[in-house]
Amino acid sequence: MVWKKSLPAGTKDKLFREAEGTYDMEKQICQVFADRGFHRIETPVMEFEDVFNQQAKQTLSLYRLFDAKGRLIVLRPDMTSPVARVISSANISLPLQLYYSGKIFRANEDLSGSRNEWTQIGVEVVGYASHKAEINCLLCAEEVLRKLQIKDFHIELSHAAIYHTLMKISGFEHTQQQYLTNLLIQKNLTELRRFVAAHPSDLDAFILMLPRLIGDPVDTIRRAKQVTSHPVIHEAFDEVLQIYQTLMATQPELSVSVDLCTVPTLSYYSGVMFAGYADSAPDAVFNGGRYDSLLNYFGFPETPAVGLAFNLDALIALQYKLNLFPKLQAPAILIHFDTAQTGKARQLQTTEKNARLSLFDELPDSIAFAKQWHYDKVIVLTESGRQDICLKEDGE
Amino acid sequence: MVWKKSLPAGTKDKLFREAEGTYDMEKQICQVFADRGFHRIETPVMEFEDVFNQQAKQTLSLYRLFDAKGRLIVLRPDMTSPVARVISSANISLPLQLYYSGKIFRANEDLSGSRNEWTQIGVEVVGYASHKAEINCLLCAEEVLRKLQIKDFHIELSHAAIYHTLMKISGFEHTQQQYLTNLLIQKNLTELRRFVAAHPSDLDAFILMLPRLIGDPVDTIRRAKQVTSHPVIHEAFDEVLQIYQTLMATQPELSVSVDLCTVPTLSYYSGVMFAGYADSAPDAVFNGGRYDSLLNYFGFPETPAVGLAFNLDALIALQYKLNLFPKLQAPAILIHFDTAQTGKARQLQTTEKNARLSLFDELPDSIAFAKQWHYDKVIVLTESGRQDICLKEDGE
Repeated sequence: MVWKKSLPAGTKDKLFREAEGTYDMEKQICQVFADRGFHRIETPVMEFEDVFNQQAKQTLSLYRLFDAKGRLIVLRPDMTSPVARVISSANISLPLQLYYSGKIFRANEDLSGSRNEWTQIGVEVVGYASHKAEINCLLCAEEVLRKLQIKDFHIELSHAAIYHTLMKISGFEHTQQQYLTNLLIQKNLTELRRFVAAHPSDLDAFILMLPRLIGDPVDTIRRAKQVTSHPVIHEAFDEVLQIYQTLMATQPELSVSVDLCTVPTLSYYSGVMFAGYADSAPDAVFNGGRYDSLLNYFGFPETPAVGLAFNLDALIALQYKLNLFPKLQAPAILIHFDTAQTGKARQLQTTEKNARLSLFDELPDSIAFAKQWHYDKVIVLTESGRQDICLKEDGE
Repeated sequence: MVWKKSLPAGTKDKLFREAEGTYDMEKQICQVFADRGFHRIETPVMEFEDVFNQQAKQTLSLYRLFDAKGRLIVLRPDMTSPVARVISSANISLPLQLYYSGKIFRANEDLSGSRNEWTQIGVEVVGYASHKAEINCLLCAEEVLRKLQIKDFHIELSHAAIYHTLMKISGFEHTQQQYLTNLLIQKNLTELRRFVAAHPSDLDAFILMLPRLIGDPVDTIRRAKQVTSHPVIHEAFDEVLQIYQTLMATQPELSVSVDLCTVPTLSYYSGVMFAGYADSAPDAVFNGGRYDSLLNYFGFPETPAVGLAFNLDALIALQYKLNLFPKLQAPAILIHFDTAQTGKARQLQTTEKNARLSLFDELPDSIAFAKQWHYDKVIVLTESGRQDICLKEDGE
C-alpha cells in the first residue's frame, strides 16, 4: 500500500487564503506580545522525552521516535516545559516575559483536521509572584482577541489548588484519584454522590456542590465558601476573586465567569487557571495558568510563573465562522514580457498595484491565464515598448 | 540517565536577540515572495514516508516514527515533495507560484547547532516550462539577499542532465554509479582517471575535464563543448548559458559562475540547478533547480517546475558574521503601577516609546530591576498620580 498522497491522521495542508490568513494571524498575535515587551524564544520541535515527564504520563499522548544513539525523542506536546528547560539550564536572569509561536504535536487517534499537529502562540511570565502576572497575560489575550475582531468571548477562571487539595487530602490511591478526576471532568453528580458516600471526608458537601459551582465569580465563590472552610481552598477562592476584580476594574466590559470544578489540563498548573471561549466555538481559543513548581522539576529553585497560549487553529476556525477571515486579494494586472525585458517587468511589478509577472514565453498563454483568473489587463513589454491589453469591459 | 536538560543532536534553542532576529528575517523573506505574487502554502511536519521515497533513499537520513495504526511517518526532510503531493492531490489549477516557510528535519549524526532541524524558506514555481521560471526564482533570491544587506554573494549554476547522462549512458551497475558519484563530489581526478581507464566510454575526455569545469560560464562551457558532442549535454550547456545571459542582462552586477561537475543534492532535479554562496560562509545560503518529473511520481502528468529554498539558519550565521544581525533595542522606561492603575499603566505603555510594564508588587523590586537592566527611568502610577524616577545621570 502506497500512502504518498494521504496525510497522517490529525494533520492538514493549508493553501492560498487559509495559509496566508493563518500566517498573517500568527504575525499579528506575535506583534501584540512583542509590542508589550515580551521577548521571543524558539525551541526545537524534537526534545528528549524526559523534558515532558512531569505532565506527559498523565495527560498527553506523545509522538515518539529514536535518535541515532537510540535515545527516546518526542515531538513537543507543549511549549511550557521546553521554556522551563531553557530557563533552568541557560544562565538567564529572572524575571522574564517570553513569547513563542510554533508547532505542537499530540497523538490523538482518529481525528481529522489539525488536531494532532497545530500552532500554539503563547507567553510565559517567569519570576513574578504578583497576580499582575496573571492579569497581564489575560489583558494581552484580550488585546489579541480585540485585534482579531473577535468580540463575543468570555474568560473562565478556575484554580488548580482546588483539584490538588481534593487529590491530596482524601488519601486515595491512584485509581481512586483517576476515578474522581473523571467524575469531576464529567461533572457527574450522581456518581459523585456514590463516591462521596463510599469515601467520606470533610469536603463531601463541597465535592457535591462542585459541578454547580459555575457562573458569576462573586456569587459562585460566596456559595462555595458556605460549604467548606478548608484554608487552601479559601485561599484559592480569594486569588480568583482578586484577579477577577482587577480584570473588571481595568476592562469592565469583559465577560468573566468561574468554573471551580475545573481539572487542570496540564498537571503542572498550581494556581489560578484560565481559558478563553468564543461564542459558537466548542474549543477554548486560549488556555493558561500559574505553574509555580515546574522549574523545580528541572532542578531550578521554585520560581513563580504564569503562562497562556492561543490555539491558532481554533482561532482560524472561529474567524472563518464569524466571516472575519481575510479574503485573498485578486491580482489585477498580469505583466507579460520578453526575456530581454525581465528587469523592466520586475520593476513595473513593484510600481503597479496588484500586478503579477507572467512566466509564459508566449503571449497567448499569458492572455488565456489572465482571462481564466479574471485579471483586468495584461501589460506586454517588448523591445518596442509597452502595450496594455484590457480584458474587462467598462462597468464590469 | 535523565536527559531533561539537554537537547537532541543537531538542534538548538534561540533566545532574545537571536530568536527575534530570526523571526524578523523569516518575515522579511516571506514578504519578498508575497510581494512578488507567490502564494503561501503550509504542509504538516509529519508525512508518510512514501512521500519522500523518490529522493529519500539516496540522499537523506530521515527521522522515522509510527502512528497509532503502525504506519511509518517521517519528519519532512524537504518541502518540495510535500508541495508536489498537494498539487497532485488537491484540485488546483496550474501554473502556480507558491512560497513556504517551515521546519525541515534531517538525521545527520553527531552535529551540533541547528543542522538536524532548521527552517527552510522557499518557492516552487509549478507549470512553467519557460526559463523565466528559473530567472524569476534567482532574481527573487537576489532581492532577498539585497534586502538582508548581504552584498558579497555569488550564484553557481549547474545542470542535472549532465550527471544523469553520465549515470545512464555508461550502463554501470548501482555500485559503480555510487562510486562515480562520490568521485565527482570529491572532484577526485586521480581516481576518475583510473575509473575511466577501467570503464571506457565516449565521455572519457569530458569526465576527466569535469573537476576543472568550474568558473566563468561562457569560458567554461566553451571549453567543455570542445571535449564532448553529446546532444543532451550540449542542450544542458545551452540552457545554463541562456539563463546566465538573461541574469547578466537584467542584473549586470551579479556574480555568477558554473560548476558543471555538480551532483544533484536532491535526486529529483532534472534541469538547471543553482546555489547561492556568500563570501566567508562555507554553506550555501540557497539551493534550487528545475524538477520536471517530480509530479509524475505522484501520479500527476509530467509538469515543469522550478524551486529554490533558503536555509534560514545559514543566513543567520552569515548575518552574525557580517555584523548585520539586528541588535535588541534596550527598553528605556519601566512602568511600576498599583494594581488599581493597571489600565492606565497599559495605556501608558502604548504611548511611551520603549516602555515596559513591571509586574512586581513592590516599588523597590521594580527599581532594582530597572537599575539591573539600565533603564533610563521608572514611572510610578498610584492613586495619587504619576511620579517619574530618573535612574540615569545627565550625559550618561
